[in-house]
Amino acid sequence: MFDLADRLARARNAVAEAGLDAVLVTPGADLRYLTGYDARPYERLTCLAVPAAGDPFLVVPRLEEPAALASPAGALDLPVVAWDETDDPYALVASRLPAGVARLGLDNQMWLEKAVAFRAALPRAEQCLAGDVLRALRIRKSPEEVEALRRAAAAIDRVHQRVGEWLRPGRTERAVGRDIADAILAEGHVRVDFVIVASGPNGASPHHEVSDRVIQAGEAVVVDIGGTTEEGYCSDSTRVYALGQPPDEFLRLYDVLQRAQRTQTAAVRPGITAEQLDAVGRDIIAEAGYGPNFVHRTGHGIGLETHEEPYIVAGSSRPLEPGMAFSVEPGIYLPGQFGARIEDIVVCTSDGGERLNRTTRELVVLDASP
Amino acid sequence: MFDLADRLARARNAVAEAGLDAVLVTPGADLRYLTGYDARPYERLTCLAVPAAGDPFLVVPRLEEPAALASPAGALDLPVVAWDETDDPYALVASRLPAGVARLGLDNQMWLEKAVAFRAALPRAEQCLAGDVLRALRIRKSPEEVEALRRAAAAIDRVHQRVGEWLRPGRTERAVGRDIADAILAEGHVRVDFVIVASGPNGASPHHEVSDRVIQAGEAVVVDIGGTTEEGYCSDSTRVYALGQPPDEFLRLYDVLQRAQRTQTAAVRPGITAEQLDAVGRDIIAEAGYGPNFVHRTGHGIGLETHEEPYIVAGSSRPLEPGMAFSVEPGIYLPGQFGARIEDIVVCTSDGGERLNRTTRELVVLDASP
Repeated sequence: MFDLADRLARARNAVAEAGLDAVLVTPGADLRYLTGYDARPYERLTCLAVPAAGDPFLVVPRLEEPAALASPAGALDLPVVAWDETDDPYALVASRLPAGVARLGLDNQMWLEKAVAFRAALPRAEQCLAGDVLRALRIRKSPEEVEALRRAAAAIDRVHQRVGEWLRPGRTERAVGRDIADAILAEGHVRVDFVIVASGPNGASPHHEVSDRVIQAGEAVVVDIGGTTEEGYCSDSTRVYALGQPPDEFLRLYDVLQRAQRTQTAAVRPGITAEQLDAVGRDIIAEAGYGPNFVHRTGHGIGLETHEEPYIVAGSSRPLEPGMAFSVEPGIYLPGQFGARIEDIVVCTSDGGERLNRTTRELVVLDASP
Repeated sequence: MFDLADRLARARNAVAEAGLDAVLVTPGADLRYLTGYDARPYERLTCLAVPAAGDPFLVVPRLEEPAALASPAGALDLPVVAWDETDDPYALVASRLPAGVARLGLDNQMWLEKAVAFRAALPRAEQCLAGDVLRALRIRKSPEEVEALRRAAAAIDRVHQRVGEWLRPGRTERAVGRDIADAILAEGHVRVDFVIVASGPNGASPHHEVSDRVIQAGEAVVVDIGGTTEEGYCSDSTRVYALGQPPDEFLRLYDVLQRAQRTQTAAVRPGITAEQLDAVGRDIIAEAGYGPNFVHRTGHGIGLETHEEPYIVAGSSRPLEPGMAFSVEPGIYLPGQFGARIEDIVVCTSDGGERLNRTTRELVVLDASP
């Protein structure tokens, strides 16, 4: 479905245009983007080499050769070169690169030990980060990628629509999280990336996951969940549930938050900068007196990774462009009391933004009987 | 249960003894080993700094401060320093390190972009890999860690004992894999690390995961599964199942393999080197004519990571020592036909080895009716 050959061709052009002689890519989203191969990041070297002049090739451990060939990479015009356990795979990569590589780009998430090994294998090459080169390819999603993100968003929406089946007073966050994780898989993902069930005061911890805390009637519960679909694209959506009637101050806070998030999602359009979009919500929250309680950026890009460029954060003057996909997820946190966050994935279109998550952004009040 | 303060104290000594001025550790097994904090490896910097002289400290993004404090790290005598979204966390780490850091160790799996950012923040510091320093702490498991590995092994053994509930002709590898993944969580893990269900010819792909292939009567199926327990320790065990009667050549192959694996697990003792232990099984397999079909090393260490030191591989003259824990998993693969692998986790003891996985190593013949 995705035109991997085109991606690889664009990568070669980008490598040359960036003045690099080659880029080396180890397992992760960049490798999957360019080859369709979803390799695990283990200690053995798996590496795609994309020279500016010359043909790309994929080096894999011998025992993973069948898996690499069975992946979409096996259908590309891409030599798959296997190394045996006692070979030096770094020397193997070096030996197949064009002679005289002087500027070598390495993927940003390469393990340092692998970069150090490449330094030994290619001592005359200056190493630099390939992030900007690869990011430029991935930051604007193609229509096919937006379609894949829509499917991922619909999958996580189906899970949110079922949260009432599991979220009840008397259950622990962990038990509810287990049910949600099962549903993430059942509703169209192949991997559970994270499950946050933050009840009562835990709602004030933005990256809380789950705990053995027993959820109480009258509490608000922040549910922030995401997974990866078989196509490799990620979902990520946060909704807040109340078990019966939460405190008045929580309702006031939630009202401010919902206004901020709605205003921000409506403000998405080409040309607005990341910091401007961040400020749209931050100003509303600050005016209501919760400025110090919105302790994180507004959002992050999403695609083959849950967190990728563009980041919607103060200090980033990057203008949004059609095809960029990112979360809009302001939050307000009152330590020791409660917190809330509302999160949608939004795609910038030619004349505005498209919200991919479509479940209600109102506080979802559930039955508080155990 | 684990004496984290002692681990951190030993790390400080090790840093000084290695002639380093400080070691920086980002999320991963090293961070969890030293602090108990199981942080996710995201783009925002989370970093434990362990100076040779001076006190360690943990730098975290503001939104993760509550999660860090709620982790075992919060109970240590360890300052947790939060940074805000527009701060430079690398400069923050640099500013808190003792003046004049000249030799800086970085954890081996640090993302290259973070190492590059530390180079900018500490331009006068020479960077090197901290792997050897940290590995020396982790490679011999304490009695408490061996106990945790025993619990992980028992958990995955319970899953293997239930495989017959799900593995039937007419089902896809993916459907069986989903049931196994559910059971990995139900039987005492908090994370599914990998699920390999390799049926028929897919058994010849050592790192096959699952596919939509429909499993047939008469086939052998390699099931290699593992997860992480709440304590953070990993399980990993491979067994082979047959749906009815597999081909005679498969039975011959399995017999050789089982003899090799039994001989290897019985050969574990202090002083035998990794390459000697590898050869014990490789020789048996080669004598039976399958030498070229055993395409990988014998095993890998296991602990807070599924793959860690010591690797049981040709070329490694490392002598085994009491407390080392590793897999013994020879395999024989006939491309296009079938394959098999038998895997136990073994701990080297003062006078031999202890097999942690206790399910039968015989071929498990299941009912072949659909």
